[in-house]
Amino acid sequence: MARTKRTGRRSGNPDTRSEILGAARRLFADEGFESVSMRRIAGEAGVDPSLIHHYFGSKDELFMAAIEIPFDPAPEVAAVLKTGDVADAGERLMHAFVAIWDGPHHEKLLAVVRTSLSKPAMSYVLRQLFEHRIVKAIEDTLGDRVDHIPVRASFIASQVFGLVVARYILKLEPVASLNAGQLAETIGPTIDRYLTMPVEHLTRDS
Amino acid sequence: MARTKRTGRRSGNPDTRSEILGAARRLFADEGFESVSMRRIAGEAGVDPSLIHHYFGSKDELFMAAIEIPFDPAPEVAAVLKTGDVADAGERLMHAFVAIWDGPHHEKLLAVVRTSLSKPAMSYVLRQLFEHRIVKAIEDTLGDRVDHIPVRASFIASQVFGLVVARYILKLEPVASLNAGQLAETIGPTIDRYLTMPVEHLTRDS
Repeated sequence: MARTKRTGRRSGNPDTRSEILGAARRLFADEGFESVSMRRIAGEAGVDPSLIHHYFGSKDELFMAAIEIPFDPAPEVAAVLKTGDVADAGERLMHAFVAIWDGPHHEKLLAVVRTSLSKPAMSYVLRQLFEHRIVKAIEDTLGDRVDHIPVRASFIASQVFGLVVARYILKLEPVASLNAGQLAETIGPTIDRYLTMPVEHLTRDS
Repeated sequence: MARTKRTGRRSGNPDTRSEILGAARRLFADEGFESVSMRRIAGEAGVDPSLIHHYFGSKDELFMAAIEIPFDPAPEVAAVLKTGDVADAGERLMHAFVAIWDGPHHEKLLAVVRTSLSKPAMSYVLRQLFEHRIVKAIEDTLGDRVDHIPVRASFIASQVFGLVVARYILKLEPVASLNAGQLAETIGPTIDRYLTMPVEHLTRDS
């Protein structure tokens, strides 16, 4: 789709919000969450940077809006992990997983995941959410007790995303029908193992 | 899309093959692989049943063509499981997983998964492939040594589909870059656990 880059300020009109979101999605996908400034996004969208703050608040909030996720999962993950032992973190994570995924945001979350898995540009954005928000939340809460968190987090993600696929997309039984306690008992220990198994030899700079 | 149901025979023309595939996809999605006969599909497509055999051979082969999967995974799974101990089946499965997924069918497989996860009708078809072909392959090879295979298979699927998502769609590091031996060592034991953990209390009729 050909589009002409606009310059100069534009005041708040019905298209401004979606113009900002479109610019944010393109830049986050092309250059990454970390390296794109609010000013760059404003320039790409052809609006004054203050308008981004007006519509979205922080860069984090703009990012959540850009990927259309109904809430920020990072504080949820942090809340689960900061209380209790590392030894049963997987079980607590499974209870939180069910509370979130079987809760009021279910349809919206499923739409985000379906889109993220089917469109490469959105997959990239979901990876950024994971690497820069969720891994960081795990590091902030378990970093003093668990080593190599980015490595462990990628294994945990391989189980948790697979649970989303098996339970909510493919609806494989009995995984689709189990309650939180049953998932904590069966899949929780997998996550516990990924938090404790030796991984030093798997890091890329080893 | 409005379409008029055709009746009577039609000889082989360039549209016949896609007409049969379309009818097969609709019926498999609506009624399930098991309950749909080749005759029903022929009727829905408006062709003589012999034409289906001519174009696709067996019902299994028609199913694989309908979901556009480049090969049948069931014999691959059976080949891996029928040799060796149950105790390290997960490790062998991970070696086979990498051989298949990092092999020449990679792009086609990824396209099948992306489509299956984004379109509900195709998710249903992938579930049927899993339940009727892959679970059956596991039962045929491990059924005399492992109980409750459909239950265990749904947990294994939750890890293996998640590995596809983390490694090939989201490309999370280091899971995206690990070799077969490293995945066998880290994710293999998860599958082994799903093959051996107590699951009697999770079955639906308990």
